Amino acid sequence: MSDHKEFRDLATPDVLRETLAGLDLDPGAETVALDDARGRVLAERVDAGIDVPGFDRAAMDGYAVRAADTFGASETDPVELDVIGEVHAGDRPDVALEPGDCVEISTGAVVPTTADAVVMVEDTSERETDADGGDAAGSGERDRVVEIRTAVAPGTHVMAAGADIAAGQRALGPGTLVTPREIGLLSALGVDAVPVRGRPRVAVVSTGDELVPPGDDLDHGAGDIHDVNTHAIAAGVRDAGGDPVVYEHVGDDEAEMAATIETAASECDLVLTSGSTSASAMDVVYRVVEERGERLLHGVAVKPGKPTLVGTIDGTAYVGLPGYPVSALSIFRTFVAPRIRAAAARPPTRTATVDATMATRERSEEGRLRLIPVGLVEDGDGATLAYPVDKGSGATTTLTAADGVVPVDPDTNYVDAGDPVTVELFSPSVRPPRVLVVGEDDPSLSRALDDVASPRYLAAGSASGRRSRRDGVADAAALAGPDADDALADDGDDTASVLGSWRRDWGLVVPAGNPDGVDGLDALVDADLSFANRDAESGVRARLDDALDALAADRDASREDLVDGISGYALETRGHESPARRVADGVVDVGLGLRETAVALDLDFVELGVDRVAVAANADRLDKPGVRDLERVLPDGD
Amino acid sequence: MSDHKEFRDLATPDVLRETLAGLDLDPGAETVALDDARGRVLAERVDAGIDVPGFDRAAMDGYAVRAADTFGASETDPVELDVIGEVHAGDRPDVALEPGDCVEISTGAVVPTTADAVVMVEDTSERETDADGGDAAGSGERDRVVEIRTAVAPGTHVMAAGADIAAGQRALGPGTLVTPREIGLLSALGVDAVPVRGRPRVAVVSTGDELVPPGDDLDHGAGDIHDVNTHAIAAGVRDAGGDPVVYEHVGDDEAEMAATIETAASECDLVLTSGSTSASAMDVVYRVVEERGERLLHGVAVKPGKPTLVGTIDGTAYVGLPGYPVSALSIFRTFVAPRIRAAAARPPTRTATVDATMATRERSEEGRLRLIPVGLVEDGDGATLAYPVDKGSGATTTLTAADGVVPVDPDTNYVDAGDPVTVELFSPSVRPPRVLVVGEDDPSLSRALDDVASPRYLAAGSASGRRSRRDGVADAAALAGPDADDALADDGDDTASVLGSWRRDWGLVVPAGNPDGVDGLDALVDADLSFANRDAESGVRARLDDALDALAADRDASREDLVDGISGYALETRGHESPARRVADGVVDVGLGLRETAVALDLDFVELGVDRVAVAANADRLDKPGVRDLERVLPDGD
Repeated sequence: MSDHKEFRDLATPDVLRETLAGLDLDPGAETVALDDARGRVLAERVDAGIDVPGFDRAAMDGYAVRAADTFGASETDPVELDVIGEVHAGDRPDVALEPGDCVEISTGAVVPTTADAVVMVEDTSERETDADGGDAAGSGERDRVVEIRTAVAPGTHVMAAGADIAAGQRALGPGTLVTPREIGLLSALGVDAVPVRGRPRVAVVSTGDELVPPGDDLDHGAGDIHDVNTHAIAAGVRDAGGDPVVYEHVGDDEAEMAATIETAASECDLVLTSGSTSASAMDVVYRVVEERGERLLHGVAVKPGKPTLVGTIDGTAYVGLPGYPVSALSIFRTFVAPRIRAAAARPPTRTATVDATMATRERSEEGRLRLIPVGLVEDGDGATLAYPVDKGSGATTTLTAADGVVPVDPDTNYVDAGDPVTVELFSPSVRPPRVLVVGEDDPSLSRALDDVASPRYLAAGSASGRRSRRDGVADAAALAGPDADDALADDGDDTASVLGSWRRDWGLVVPAGNPDGVDGLDALVDADLSFANRDAESGVRARLDDALDALAADRDASREDLVDGISGYALETRGHESPARRVADGVVDVGLGLRETAVALDLDFVELGVDRVAVAANADRLDKPGVRDLERVLPDGD
Repeated sequence: MSDHKEFRDLATPDVLRETLAGLDLDPGAETVALDDARGRVLAERVDAGIDVPGFDRAAMDGYAVRAADTFGASETDPVELDVIGEVHAGDRPDVALEPGDCVEISTGAVVPTTADAVVMVEDTSERETDADGGDAAGSGERDRVVEIRTAVAPGTHVMAAGADIAAGQRALGPGTLVTPREIGLLSALGVDAVPVRGRPRVAVVSTGDELVPPGDDLDHGAGDIHDVNTHAIAAGVRDAGGDPVVYEHVGDDEAEMAATIETAASECDLVLTSGSTSASAMDVVYRVVEERGERLLHGVAVKPGKPTLVGTIDGTAYVGLPGYPVSALSIFRTFVAPRIRAAAARPPTRTATVDATMATRERSEEGRLRLIPVGLVEDGDGATLAYPVDKGSGATTTLTAADGVVPVDPDTNYVDAGDPVTVELFSPSVRPPRVLVVGEDDPSLSRALDDVASPRYLAAGSASGRRSRRDGVADAAALAGPDADDALADDGDDTASVLGSWRRDWGLVVPAGNPDGVDGLDALVDADLSFANRDAESGVRARLDDALDALAADRDASREDLVDGISGYALETRGHESPARRVADGVVDVGLGLRETAVALDLDFVELGVDRVAVAANADRLDKPGVRDLERVLPDGD
């Protein structure tokens, strides 16, 4: 091993937090257009530059009056005023009230300076009169007269200039988060450009020769994988209020990598790299940090996330995240995102937590804070269960199959099944899936789930589903092979209830035209063909093994004898299409699979039998709305 | 009144919700780049198109071996294997292992097909040998040999191709919210374009001749006001997951308005207008809805928000919001935003609520759901008090001075002081201000508050502050005039504690050069000058009245006699700068104000006295961190 890194003195999580807090990420202030200010934070106080309203404004529809003219008016003894004009919103009043005059006025209109109150229309009755004051009967010039049935004080139903906010008054303080309501007030003040705290510019640099951008083709044989961290971390930076700047993926060319990191440091407030798994890439990062900055911390007592590096490069804050996506995002979310939020002056997120019961025992490791990714499921009583989700730090599905993490203290060895735990949700909006299905990878089930709201489907195989349901984790097991036969046999298991079942043809998938002339299981056993199998958890594999048992019995041999003749029988693949895809790619001659898959991939199919799939719910989950939804959409064959 | 609208049959809130639910806002689906997918919702299922990983991948640094070669190896009885090469991440392995061979391998590298397990480096020791197998001593060609101290089973520390997710498996279901974690999985799958639910296009149209965009100048005399609703509602639409399309402000030209609304209906999924207060504008909207669509509902039993109109225009959903910003945003937030969220398939926001005690009695009105805007303050025991914030529906400061609303049932007449209430926060991130200061509008206090986190300052005047503190609402009162003298006199009021105090010169603000030669209060009383006063709540006004009393005593007259000679004494303005600004604008000859204001506005100043300002906290709030912060930043004069 050329340069295997040891981490003898791991920093505690608190030390990591303090180290990050000590870094300078200050983005400074900037001015943005009002329409771009939503979600930003004011960099400085905004005082009112104008009175709002800018004039004495009618607060009701009615009549603008001289208040003194109404004194003594009542329902039984109204006063009459002459209506000498109208003022609507947006009009310049060109009337001057003499004693006994009034003006019809609309809400929002300018109250003439010669008036000092508004009587609302509900307290008035207007009529027309002849020019001489009598009731209007014939034609001729009409005067307008209004009966006022209430006395009003000066200022009634008038919003005085500046009554909302007066010029010179403090409107919004520095640090205010701009929401639609603040945008409303800023609009009222006529502010169309807003001084806000800048968003920290965060360089996102992924290193590693093996990384290929999504959308480009992979060379699997050369160990290519898609670059996961760049896009996920850039999105996380945006969530935290930062401005991600993605630097083109750098390979393991040392000079190029050093140049990219130095450029990023000169252009951004924080540089994030996510480590190449290759030692040479880390060497370059170390060298750049040592030569042009300071290494503040290397190695954290957190699992996952140990190989985290914190320092500065040319005075710019630097964090080196682990390469594995689960580790990188875990460290980012727990430690780096809050620091970016603080630099952007965003209010800290309230960590959303859920009290749950651990569904299965999970070991931990002394001396490190363990963050166990867990999925959540509600049991029949509405209590929340947490079950560990961990396909290894390298697995990206762990990211989406988990709802949050259970933090386990460094001095705790394990969490036992039944232990109460506090789950830190990935975000406050996370909800447990409405129904959790574990079991066989089946295309019909996958399609049916499209019509169920918020399902989770862990296609780990029929045997996994059987165990998960029995352990009280899965709401429902997707069973295939003999598991399905048992479930459908109604053998008196009153803990389970079949929600739906259907049939599917299983057999051998071969290239289009069946070039090797495969006509059954005998051919597979006897001919010199390469084969791709499914894993032992799957129901279709159980069907194959049963068929091999039967063939062995016919031949008076053992299954092992037959299996020895199948090149690739031990090659277990995980997905229902995996063997067929290997056939399509010309990697093997024959694959185990379903007719539907062969048709979808334009391959030929040699049927060996009919499999049944049954979805069996835990009896005590039947009242869950998600389980009822699932039952509604599942095929119901025999 | 030309066309005053009556609302005889008000729809209930539930009917409004159902009517909105019945509108078609479906934006359809679209495809966006991966980097733009954050926060969007998947429109369809995404299945894995490739195996992840695409090859058997080393999960640890170490040696790739044929597992069978390690059988029997132990700490005490290691086996030795020949190291025939190295494979790093991104390398294509070009080695073939024979029995007894192994290959150095890095995490993430391709496991050669001739190996089937990885031994981690911690369980090995490598040494070099001479080509003939002896220990390396001299120079010459060296062979590498590694001692393996543990037995491994096939598959150990190997992540099999497709073990994370296999091609053909369901990766993410329709309706999944795309967060950084989903972006991680999509990246791993190589997906760079994502099918997502569209964002409903929401037309935002503000109507009214009197509306002027922020940034443009207002003609106050003509009743101009800035357009508040367009920007605030557009921001609210974005918050809800919609795509706001702002249509240029339309005046009251009927043809133009009708054309704009029809264009908006043809281009968007939902048209929102916020009503002009002018009757003619509403007439146009009614006419367009009647002629080209359907009026579904007009008038809602909600306060504020009664004049809400729901219908369709050319088949497009239409909602007419009230014109007043508080009303418009209240109806938008409570009813329209959830509908937009649903159309965008966003998960509904969890309504954040806070239990509080009503601080003061508030009347309601039977028959309508009342949404009382309230501010929040924590008392000395950490309990939350809610106090009504309502400067009228026309006041935009109500938007920012409130933290949420208290819904009051239609059959309830009032909420009493001391009643427990549930406050619906405007958003889950809303927190009560850390310190609430009510009282005198003072520039020194405003500046000091810039250094306090999350303050709220209601500059309603010294008298308001005194009452609010006494009523147990304000944490601290900003007192001036005689209120400040009393507070500083240490007269044994043990309910209050002065946090800081300072002096300010008060007097008459006159134009630069003092053209009227104003030299004191006598001139104001005796000369023919127009004057702008402050309101009776302010401490500076109390100083003026005291000085007038003293002058009256000198002259053996009453204050009323003197006041009669001051043209504009009754003109009360609200802000500390308001009179001075009227002087600067040439509206009046003399204004009541502070020396600091005169200097800031380049005006002259005639000092009449020295005012004191004292900030007095409620004694039982002294331990609040915000109060301690305030004390720290306040000037402490005598």
